[in-house]
Parts: sequence; structure tokens; C-alpha cells
Amino acid sequence: MSETKVEAKLYPIGVIRSAIQTLAQAPKQGPEGAPDAWLEVNESVAEGLDGLAKGDELILLTWLHRANRDVLKVHPRSDPQRRLTGVFATRSPDRPNPIGIHPVTIREIQENRLRIGPIEVIDGTPVIDIKPLNC
Amino acid sequence: MSETKVEAKLYPIGVIRSAIQTLAQAPKQGPEGAPDAWLEVNESVAEGLDGLAKGDELILLTWLHRANRDVLKVHPRSDPQRRLTGVFATRSPDRPNPIGIHPVTIREIQENRLRIGPIEVIDGTPVIDIKPLNC
Repeated sequence: MSETKVEAKLYPIGVIRSAIQTLAQAPKQGPEGAPDAWLEVNESVAEGLDGLAKGDELILLTWLHRANRDVLKVHPRSDPQRRLTGVFATRSPDRPNPIGIHPVTIREIQENRLRIGPIEVIDGTPVIDIKPLNC
Repeated sequence: MSETKVEAKLYPIGVIRSAIQTLAQAPKQGPEGAPDAWLEVNESVAEGLDGLAKGDELILLTWLHRANRDVLKVHPRSDPQRRLTGVFATRSPDRPNPIGIHPVTIREIQENRLRIGPIEVIDGTPVIDIKPLNC
């Protein structure tokens, strides 16, 4: 069982630059009225973008840096009428490893900056991976 | 830009117990002939499973602990005939933050052990998050 005790370090590969400045402004999911945003990819890993093009559909993984990692039960969608539920049965950002999954489309590419959307995270959210939706 | 330098530590929430013992035995993606496996969730976070049921469709996030994190370009699907492509335009496990995304179905639940599949990762792969596919 030693593998379950391994710690792994994540290094952000970029950051989201968005008009959404506060958690209160952020929709719960991208398709619920979220805007487009810029994804600024670090120069050190920009070579990894080769092959991406305008119109591509991606899955972005983000690090939800404002989340509470000690929470194991929540009211789904912050609705107190809904019973407390395990975080692994919800999309709550509060969870042991607060990774966000976001299906987005590339609107535009300017060197290591990608205009993408829709995306509901706040300005300054670290991005940890980019994957093609289909492969 | 300070957010892009933040380091984040992941703590595995469980581990995959699979008949796949070596990378050579592993299919590239779950639907390509992968077996079912057991997901053993750590007791410390098992409360987070409350609300999950047999038949639910999930997205599992794993830490691909054998991956090479220094690779930025690969031949897609390890095919030398295909031109070198940025890792962010591929599903290669080799990438700066080697996180695997796996759509799976719950076949059975035994307390903190979930029988899930299909899943292509090797025995001992750490699991870092569980999310419902729909919410």
C-alpha cells in the first residue's frame, strides 16, 4: 500500500487571465454563462502546445487554489435544501485534491497565449494540464 | 504572475488494484480492451464516497507515477510515422503534470472499495480524485 502515501508535486504550466475577479462572480460550471479567458502558458513548456489550432476542443485541468482541502461532505451546488453528500459524488471545488476539469474551445492562438472558453474560474487560477478532448 | 510559480502537493486518495502489472500490458485508453479493476479508497477520505452508487458514471483522476515529466514533444500513440507533436495536443502520459483522466462505471461497491472500469492503468497507480460525469 506504499503507493497511497506517495506525495506528488504539481507545477503550474500557465495561468488563467479572466474578467472574473471574485468567487462570487464565478458561475458553477463553464456552460452556465461563463466568459472566454486568456490562458497564458509558461515559456518553459510552450513547446508542448505544438499541434494545437483554433477551433480545437480541449480539456483544461486547473488547480482550484482557493478551495478547502479538508472538506469531505457538502450540500450539492451550495443548496442547503440538498442533503450533505460526499465530495466525490459532487463537483464541489472543496475536496482533497482541488483539480478543476473544464471542456473548452480554442478561439485564438497568439504564440504562448490561448484565448479559450467558456471557463468559470477566477483570474489568476493556475493551469496544470491541457489535453485534446478527442484523440 | 506569482500564481504560476505556486507549487501544489497532491495526496493520493486511493489506489488502483488491477490485473495489469506492466506498462507493456496496458492499452492506451480504457475503451480499447481495458479490464475492470478495484479502486481502494483510503479510510481517511472514505466519507467522501457517500452518495455514489452502482451504475454511476465517474471521471477518475490518477497520478501516472511512471511518466517522464520532462518530455514536451512525442510521436502520437508512440507511432514513429506520426510527426513529433506537443504533449498538450496528445494524450501521452509523458507531460509536465502526468494526470490521467478516465471515464469509468461503478460495477460494485464494498465499503471503501469500488469495482470500476474499464480502466487501462497499471496495478498500484495512485488515484487523486473522483468526480461524477454528470451533475
